[in-house]
Formats: sequence, structure tokens, C-alpha cells
Amino acid sequence: MPVISHRGSLMPPSPIRKLVPYADAAKKKGTKVYHLNIGQPDIVTPQAILDAVRHTDMKVLEYSPSPGFESYRKKLVEYYKRNDINVTSNQIIVTTGGSEAIMFAIMSCLDPGDEIIIPEPFYANYNGFSTSSGVKVVPIPSGIETGFALPPIEQFEKAVTTRTKAVMICNPNNPTGYLYSASELNVLREICLKHDLFLFSDEAYREFCYDGSKHISALSLEGLEDHAILLDTISKRYSACGGRIGAFVTRNQAVLDAAMKFAQARLSPPSFAQILGEAAVDLPADYFNEVHAEYTLRRDVLVKRLNAIPGVKCPTPGGAFYAIAQLPVDNAEKFCQWLLESFSHNGATVMMAPAAGFYATPGKGKNEVRLAYVLNSNDINAAMDCLEAALKVYKS
Amino acid sequence: MPVISHRGSLMPPSPIRKLVPYADAAKKKGTKVYHLNIGQPDIVTPQAILDAVRHTDMKVLEYSPSPGFESYRKKLVEYYKRNDINVTSNQIIVTTGGSEAIMFAIMSCLDPGDEIIIPEPFYANYNGFSTSSGVKVVPIPSGIETGFALPPIEQFEKAVTTRTKAVMICNPNNPTGYLYSASELNVLREICLKHDLFLFSDEAYREFCYDGSKHISALSLEGLEDHAILLDTISKRYSACGGRIGAFVTRNQAVLDAAMKFAQARLSPPSFAQILGEAAVDLPADYFNEVHAEYTLRRDVLVKRLNAIPGVKCPTPGGAFYAIAQLPVDNAEKFCQWLLESFSHNGATVMMAPAAGFYATPGKGKNEVRLAYVLNSNDINAAMDCLEAALKVYKS
Repeated sequence: MPVISHRGSLMPPSPIRKLVPYADAAKKKGTKVYHLNIGQPDIVTPQAILDAVRHTDMKVLEYSPSPGFESYRKKLVEYYKRNDINVTSNQIIVTTGGSEAIMFAIMSCLDPGDEIIIPEPFYANYNGFSTSSGVKVVPIPSGIETGFALPPIEQFEKAVTTRTKAVMICNPNNPTGYLYSASELNVLREICLKHDLFLFSDEAYREFCYDGSKHISALSLEGLEDHAILLDTISKRYSACGGRIGAFVTRNQAVLDAAMKFAQARLSPPSFAQILGEAAVDLPADYFNEVHAEYTLRRDVLVKRLNAIPGVKCPTPGGAFYAIAQLPVDNAEKFCQWLLESFSHNGATVMMAPAAGFYATPGKGKNEVRLAYVLNSNDINAAMDCLEAALKVYKS
Repeated sequence: MPVISHRGSLMPPSPIRKLVPYADAAKKKGTKVYHLNIGQPDIVTPQAILDAVRHTDMKVLEYSPSPGFESYRKKLVEYYKRNDINVTSNQIIVTTGGSEAIMFAIMSCLDPGDEIIIPEPFYANYNGFSTSSGVKVVPIPSGIETGFALPPIEQFEKAVTTRTKAVMICNPNNPTGYLYSASELNVLREICLKHDLFLFSDEAYREFCYDGSKHISALSLEGLEDHAILLDTISKRYSACGGRIGAFVTRNQAVLDAAMKFAQARLSPPSFAQILGEAAVDLPADYFNEVHAEYTLRRDVLVKRLNAIPGVKCPTPGGAFYAIAQLPVDNAEKFCQWLLESFSHNGATVMMAPAAGFYATPGKGKNEVRLAYVLNSNDINAAMDCLEAALKVYKS
């Protein structure tokens, strides 16, 4: 019998899916499960952009060009311009979700054995894509004590080796919700310039910044024209996760040329959702205002409820729709499993993602969970009722 | 300035796109270009399956499950059963085009430095995906003299090393149109069993078999239950290339488990086109009869016209919608470029893919071209008028 590859064995399973069988079993027993575990927003996809797909009158569902439809890339130029990011349509490659943009960045810039520095906790799939490409993730610590601020520059300096090729951030951050400040981004700018590193900036949650803070794109950082690569997706922005449309954006021509070869090998990104993405750029400006107000409300409810529970600590996230909370338990994974297997409150329970899966350093985040506030505030309140009741009876 | 990766440099550019700038220039001059260079069918996508997408009433365009919608995978089980392939829905992972299925197979089964044997000429992107994964393609020769039949078993034996992990075929073949016989597949069966190799079988053109021949899937080969991996796509079958929906199918549980981790890392395949793919399984049986009759006509016209040109030789392909022809020129790439740059006949010219790009061995296929018969027979006749006139005046 032929055997699978080492990389197939090494590939980490998705940490947020480990508990899915327990959730399924809970539902089978009739327990309602509040899903705060995954970043699948419940916000309805704007009718106008779904209609754009419904009203296409194509005769042949053809391959689009490998970098995406030109009309869509031109629209994206408009979108980025509105966000103070000045790029041309030739500096954009439309990708199959943000996932493919991440892969193109890793493959175009790093070789097997090369290292990428990522502040932890981080989006778990960065690890997956690095493993599949033979690249080593070097985590540097950010912690709940500082609200997950960017680690100081000395931490980066300590982590840089001859194999370091890139630094990667998610801004605002999944899983922490942290929004990087201008001065933090300047630290990244300095370290990338000094050591000639690429800066991969995952800005999937650009529109989700709260309390009047402004998002700063890596592509706006001066002097980083050849270093910065923006990784983007329409998934969260327009509640269009199933479309699988993202973007890879850089001004570095050599990187674009390399990424285009990977793009050509896979032929093209999906056509239908490009039509949706193109229509999305023309959504009225107040679309985000409503979405923004809704997420602000949810965040406020969630963080307030969490911090009101004895022993629970949750820094207020400045962006995205995630928060990490420290719980008064020894092992958050066991607690999350117990919530699904053995607990219910008013016929319901809550599903959260154990945060250890977002740390690369073993043992870190063991008593933390990630919560995605993708449910309406009533449901969040009900979920917090469950959590509060559960912590009263749970014995670590 | 940071530099790109070696794999980014090594990644081969798409051979079929090299001549695109010349075609664009020809069109700018007002010359009509008959595109026989790419496998983008002109056949209209069935209205019923486009309508399935138009009539969806989803509220939220959600992620589908990583292996694809269960309803679609169950429909695919029906489809495969009709094609004498018995699998369960859990043995199918829906992929983003056939491209992703190829990638999952390579990543799940081969490590950097491992070798995969592929009869040449072969689909050029196999090379791209192998390069991006650090895998070495070991070509074994098939040639126009034998109509691109499978090389004899001795050629495989000679190519096997301790690093050989898989054999890959495309059946019916792109770029040759060759349809493998039962006895040829038995050769593959023997070699895979003897040396414990995976068999990757790209069956994108399953329905396109002519002259009453029957397609035999690698998944139907006895004793290869743990070796065979079927790589599939709806792109050509339903003229739905832009949907980007394919499938990775195997009975080997360890391979499925590995591939699922790669599938989870990229979250999900595109939702819209899965709806289209699901509807496609319910198309009336006579849909393929019409398509089949049309492609048979085109093939017959193309092959007859080619072989009637002095010095041109084209074996009759048994499947797919490609043919390779030998031309009376020294260098087919130069000739193809000249056709676009310097030639027209009745205001038109023809674009073909130089076949050298489909061979891994340098120098092979230099006087050959691949023609995709994806145009109607009138256009094919007009394109052949161009080629015939061109060869009369072209001086190698």
C-alpha cells in the first residue's frame, strides 16, 4: 500500500473543527448550540450583489483571465482608492478567497526552510499554508496582558535569522480583534527595511474598526513599496464567504510576476463571485455604517458580559469580530468540549474555539477561548447566560 | 529590496499564453484570430444549470463545508455510479477546479524531491503544480508515431527509482486526445501494484470518447483501491470552466484524511458553482449525445483537413477535444508566432499551441502543435484554410 507524504502527515488539522462532532451530538440531543466558534457572519449578503449574479446573462461560463476579470480589477482600484490605497489594476491578482492570496504570498516569497515571523496568537491556517509549503513559522509573543498589542521591536530582532524572509500580520487581527496603531506599523516598517523582509498584511477585516479608529494598510507605509503585500478577501466585508474571492496586491513587480505564474497554473478564480465582488464596490456607502453599528453593539454586549463573569478577562477588541477571553479554567479545550457534551442551560449551550490552537508555542493560551461575535446581540446574551451558568458549576 | 523565492523563479510560465501578446496585436490590426490554442469550449453552458444559480434564494452566501456541500457530494455519487464508478459521498472532496484536485493529490502523496512519472506530452500545468510542490516530473516518451499510445511497461520500469511515488495520466488525454485502452490501463495497474505507486488519473474528459469506445476509470481497476486517485472537473463536461469546481476522489482513507487537511486550510470550494454542478447531474441523458455529436463532427473535419495538407500528420484522437499535429516546419513556436505576426488569409489567421510546451524533454515536439477543436466546424474549416495557405508561403 502506498503511503502518504510527510507534509500530509505534518499538516495540522483545523483547530476550530476539532469540537464539531461534539456540537453535532449536542444538536442531536435537542440542545441549541450558540456558535461563537467560527467567523461565519449571520449578516445577510446584500441583495444587490446577489442579484448581480442572478441577473447575469452569460451564454458560456468561461474561464476568467488568470488575474481576474479586468472590469473587476478596475473596480477594485476604485475601492482601494477610497481606502487610501493607491494601486493600479495590474498590481492586483484576484484570488480564490483570501486563502489563495496567502498561499501565493508564501510560495512567491519563501522557499522550504525559510522562516516567517508571525505574532501569536494568529489565524491558524497561516500554519497550515506554511506547513504545506515547507516554511517555518517563528512566533513572537503577544499576550492578553497587553491586550495583544504588537510585541516590541526587540522581540522581532531576536527572532530574525538568515532564513527569515517575511513578517506576517492580520490587521485588524483574527483571533484577537487587535487593531495595529500607526506607531506599531512603524515598528514593522523599520524591521522590514532593516532586514529586507517582506511584510504580508492580511486585511480581511479592514472595514471592521471601532471607536473611531482608522485602519492603516501596509500598502500605505512609506518606503515599503517593494516589501508590502496586501492579502485581501470579500468574505467578511460583504458576508460573502462562500464566494471564494480575494485579492493579492503588491507594487513589487518581481513578486507579481511570480504570483502570476502560480495564478496561471490554476487557470482562474471563480467567475460568479467576481461578478458579485464587482457589484459590491458600488454598494452605497451607508451599507458599512449599518454593519458597523451592528458589530459595535455585539462587541459591546459580548465584552461587557464576559468581563462581568467572575474570573473572566476580555480586553476590548478594536477591530474585526473576534475577542479572546481568559477563563477561570485549567484547560479551555476540555471546558469547551464539556459545554457541548455535558452542559445545557435553558436547553442551550455555547460553542467557542479553544485559543491554544491559535498559538504556535505549546502550552500558550491554554485557558483562553476565541469568540466570534457573529450572532445578534440577543443570541450573544443568551450564549453569555450559558457561559456564566456553566462556569458556576464547572470543576476544572 | 527583498527577493522572490527560488520556486517563484523556477515556476514555469504557461506555455499556451506565451503567444497571447501576438494574438492581441493581430486583433488590433483587424485580423480575425481563430483560437484553436486553448481548451475553452464555445459550447453554451446548459441553461438549466445556469438557471439553478440564478434561482437560488440564499440569504447569506456562507462557506460550504470544506469537502463541499453534502447534497452535491451525494449527487456526485449518482453521477459516478452511472459511469460505473462506485464511491461513497465521504470518498469525494469537492475542489476548486480540477487544478486544486491535482494539487491535493501531489501534496498529499509526494514530498519535495519525490518523483512522479508522467507520459509526455502532458498537460503543462502538471509541471507547474509539481514545481510549486518541489516534486520532480519524470517523463516517459509517447510519440506521434504510435498515435501517443501508452509507452510499454519497460519504459516505466526504467523510470522507477526509490523516490518514485506516483504515476499520473490524463485519460482521455490533453494534449494528445489519446484514449487509454483496457490493456494499457492494466500496464499501469501492474506497475503501480509492483512498486506501490499511487495512480493519479485526470478524467476531465470522461464523456468525450469517440468511435464507440468506452472510458475506463482508474477507480474501476481491480486491486488499485488504495492506489487510485481520480482527479475530476465539471469544466469541460458542462462547458463550465469559470465555475471552478472539480473533485478529488479516492478510496484510500489515509489520503482522504490528508487531503481533507489541505481542504480545511483553504476553508471551502466556491458555493455558486457547486449549485450549478449539483443541477448538472440531473441534466437529461441526451445532453451529452448532442455535445458528443458536435465534437465528433469537429474532430472529423479537423483531422481530415490536417492530413490533407502536404507534410502535415495528425493521428485521429480517440477522446477529449485536442489533437497534436506534426507540421512541415523546423520550429512550430516560430511558425505559430509568424502566423499571428505576419500572416493573414481572407483577413484571418489561426492560433495554435506549440506542442514543445507539453513535453518535459528539451527538443521534443518542436515541429508539433496542439489544436483544441473548440470552434464550430465552419470556423475549423476556415482556420484550416488559413493553415493550408500559410504553409504554402512559410519558409522555415
